[in-house]
Amino acid sequence: MLTRIDHVGIACRDLTERISFYETTFGLTVVSREVNEAQGVREAMLHVADAPAGSSYIQLLEPLAPQTPVGRFIARRGEGIHHIGYGVADLASALAELGATGVRLIDERPRHGSMGAAVSFLHPSGMGGVLTELVQAPDR
Amino acid sequence: MLTRIDHVGIACRDLTERISFYETTFGLTVVSREVNEAQGVREAMLHVADAPAGSSYIQLLEPLAPQTPVGRFIARRGEGIHHIGYGVADLASALAELGATGVRLIDERPRHGSMGAAVSFLHPSGMGGVLTELVQAPDR
Repeated sequence: MLTRIDHVGIACRDLTERISFYETTFGLTVVSREVNEAQGVREAMLHVADAPAGSSYIQLLEPLAPQTPVGRFIARRGEGIHHIGYGVADLASALAELGATGVRLIDERPRHGSMGAAVSFLHPSGMGGVLTELVQAPDR
Repeated sequence: MLTRIDHVGIACRDLTERISFYETTFGLTVVSREVNEAQGVREAMLHVADAPAGSSYIQLLEPLAPQTPVGRFIARRGEGIHHIGYGVADLASALAELGATGVRLIDERPRHGSMGAAVSFLHPSGMGGVLTELVQAPDR
């Protein structure tokens, strides 16, 4: 079902500062910056590597307000790794398959993710504490 | 400097149960199981995808005792994502380069990681709360 580790999502207080840190420390490059109002974040995708099934990224997430999921995450646990996103070829069929196994879905239908992807989150309570995202990249 | 996302490390209370969950839910396959006494963990690597620069994995980590880094992590924050591991081509030169930028190294010299890799950890306090591991795969 999983084609790759698409990205690791990292919560930070200051997106610009954290981007600069990753650029300087590891030489990563920002390939996308956007605001996702529905998810309550300002975010950037930094390219790490390419693979046959698609690229992998670090996704930096700054909350738009304290009362957002990422804002509450930082208040509770501090900055750090927020979630993991896996690539899938077909999100709708992956969700149908997972729903049948009893995994708890946050999003029963795909929603808008970074760079035009369709995404759905799986609840950490059914995933051993791991907030898990499935990502279907747009047709290019 | 970074060639790929090598793995995401996930802390769990029961390795066998968590392996079974990932096998059943996502169809992942265990490619290595080992005990790392120095790191205080019993662990498994589950293969996610291949790429030109090397494969990527989910690394499941069960603490050998409560008073280990992963044991304390679970006591403090519960099960969940513990760290991210990036592939590097040359760990010694990556550490030299990072040391010069002021990043705080946990391991100034490479130590033994999963599947014969040489690894070093960077302290989360200098990494925006992200425990970060660098991984140089063994010559095959």
